Amino acid sequence: EFKVDWDAAAAEKGGFASFMEKEINDQPEAVAQTLLGRAGLDGKLELDELRIDPSLLKAVDKIIVLACGTSAYAGQVAKYAIEHWCRIPVEVELSHEFRYRDPIVDANTLIVAISQSGETMDTLMAVRYAQEQGAKVLAICNTNGSTIPREADAVLYTHAGPEIAVASTKAFLAQITAAYLLGLYLAQLRGNLFSGQIRDILADLGKVPAKIQAILDDADRIKKLARSMSDARSVLFLGRHVGFPVAMEGALKLKELAYIHAEGFAAGELKHGPIALIEEGQPVFVIVPSPRGRNSLHAKVVSNIQEIRARGAKTVVIAEEGDTAVQAYAEHVFYIPETPVLLAPLLATVPLQIFACELATAKGYDVDQPRNLAKSVTVE
Amino acid sequence: EFKVDWDAAAAEKGGFASFMEKEINDQPEAVAQTLLGRAGLDGKLELDELRIDPSLLKAVDKIIVLACGTSAYAGQVAKYAIEHWCRIPVEVELSHEFRYRDPIVDANTLIVAISQSGETMDTLMAVRYAQEQGAKVLAICNTNGSTIPREADAVLYTHAGPEIAVASTKAFLAQITAAYLLGLYLAQLRGNLFSGQIRDILADLGKVPAKIQAILDDADRIKKLARSMSDARSVLFLGRHVGFPVAMEGALKLKELAYIHAEGFAAGELKHGPIALIEEGQPVFVIVPSPRGRNSLHAKVVSNIQEIRARGAKTVVIAEEGDTAVQAYAEHVFYIPETPVLLAPLLATVPLQIFACELATAKGYDVDQPRNLAKSVTVE
Repeated sequence: EFKVDWDAAAAEKGGFASFMEKEINDQPEAVAQTLLGRAGLDGKLELDELRIDPSLLKAVDKIIVLACGTSAYAGQVAKYAIEHWCRIPVEVELSHEFRYRDPIVDANTLIVAISQSGETMDTLMAVRYAQEQGAKVLAICNTNGSTIPREADAVLYTHAGPEIAVASTKAFLAQITAAYLLGLYLAQLRGNLFSGQIRDILADLGKVPAKIQAILDDADRIKKLARSMSDARSVLFLGRHVGFPVAMEGALKLKELAYIHAEGFAAGELKHGPIALIEEGQPVFVIVPSPRGRNSLHAKVVSNIQEIRARGAKTVVIAEEGDTAVQAYAEHVFYIPETPVLLAPLLATVPLQIFACELATAKGYDVDQPRNLAKSVTVE
Repeated sequence: EFKVDWDAAAAEKGGFASFMEKEINDQPEAVAQTLLGRAGLDGKLELDELRIDPSLLKAVDKIIVLACGTSAYAGQVAKYAIEHWCRIPVEVELSHEFRYRDPIVDANTLIVAISQSGETMDTLMAVRYAQEQGAKVLAICNTNGSTIPREADAVLYTHAGPEIAVASTKAFLAQITAAYLLGLYLAQLRGNLFSGQIRDILADLGKVPAKIQAILDDADRIKKLARSMSDARSVLFLGRHVGFPVAMEGALKLKELAYIHAEGFAAGELKHGPIALIEEGQPVFVIVPSPRGRNSLHAKVVSNIQEIRARGAKTVVIAEEGDTAVQAYAEHVFYIPETPVLLAPLLATVPLQIFACELATAKGYDVDQPRNLAKSVTVE
């Protein structure tokens, strides 16, 4: 008998060595599909399922994002955008912590539950708890008809396609995209933004897939760096503003795939403790905000780079195309295309995913099935 | 000429080898002094300085704690207690992130600024920003007449005494104590708790100094463990509920003093990524909640210990006296005296401080002056 199973598997992987690599490369499509068909002919955004009276959504005075792991980082990215667009305070809580701390939730609280599988047990239990307190729940999930969207009062599906690799990549970008759509939907419903502003932001989101593709097409340099760093014992990641959750996600990917101690910090925390870790040769990734717009943040992060470099850190910088100021302070610079500040995480995350995947591969690890981890955590 | 400077320094250290060790041992006094004289003859709690009309404090509908580093962890501990006692939502934000993210703040927001020195530049700038938005600011500081309390609308001083060592210990416990007093003050003012309940909680707080002393008197075993672990390349810390910020503080002390990669996690996050780091011999501290009261949390944390132990982790458990259930799953158990759940961080932190101080000393490092760090971060 002739076994060709590996052929079938290879076909599923679309010619890539792993599902993870395939899914990293699926990301332009994942974001594009998640954006597709959300606005009607009249330009009005729509959710997939809405079992809440829109007047209730107009009255929302607090949003709590409930999620675990990578999905919680997607929520942290979305917090910046939703607060900015809708002026509704957004808290992001780990689902398993939320249930056990007497959270203050009422009928004007909108819970946003983010789960790739829609079956994450901790998030499901937290959703049920919040509903008992009278809150409405909107689910952002990737799996049609799974438990969390079935029990939720409204649903916004990410259309990332099936994610097979245990460490989430394309679902993360699709979750951020969906949460941004939710922010724009609420801003439209509540009149926080003009329709022209919403159209402009949607147009900018529409350009993101091609920009992700440009990063993917230029992946060789970061892969080479990853292979050269396979002996690293620890890697730190720094970011500010929307770059802070990106730094934490970059660190999590390295923990999950390469079993390297990695931690993401708000760059402003450095002086309050973590800078003690910096010694000769310590690799540090820095997510640098655009020098356009909020110049003060760019200058502050560049100053953080100088501080750690003066103490021997080996700095790897993710910066916006055209930001030549960072070159003097970085061992390695990887550029991402220009995009509005709030959308930058959809781009800045990609080189970090490629880095972790390639480094783990160089160490000989199975990037699709990291040790100790399951794809969906359906137990508490 | 006869130099006796070292004698003077030794005297200041009260016979201890370092300021840090002295300050760890000052903690019963730091907590007791912070509690002292807060209630008048009529049992009413008082702040040190109050330049806000109490009617405004009654109308507060959101508290935002602004702090950096260890002070931010004190805020995270306090969040649990204040939300529980006062039913006011509490957000904890890093000062340097707060200013740059369009925070939603208004006249009904109370900002609680926590800073040992009262001069932390990031927190000062965040305070000024919040005041411009119309928010009232209450300062929790250890240094009388410093800038943040001077500019604040109300002040609650921690009476920890001067803290010389760069890594904060007694100021941390005093900050938690002061934030609890603030919670009780607000609960009294707003009628959230009965006076008998407040008296009971104050009585429990009054017993904390003697319980800290009991931990200090029994420090030899954890010191011995610390010396035996001076080669550790990384140490993880797990906690849930109020034990989560304790875990992060334990990790921060080890980073600051011993330059070891250490990270604190919410135990529920393990399965969502960090458990991939667990391999044979990986040291993991676990802060176990009391088996009294919320039993479900105790059982969940014990189950987390079993999971990591099955993967080879070397577990060091901080548990409540009488919790024999954990012994079967731990290489080392350190017991802390019984205390109500919300007060447990005032005890559980102490063994972690002793551990970090002793391990760093065993590595030959200066625990009072860790590399790269300054006591007060008075620049941005």
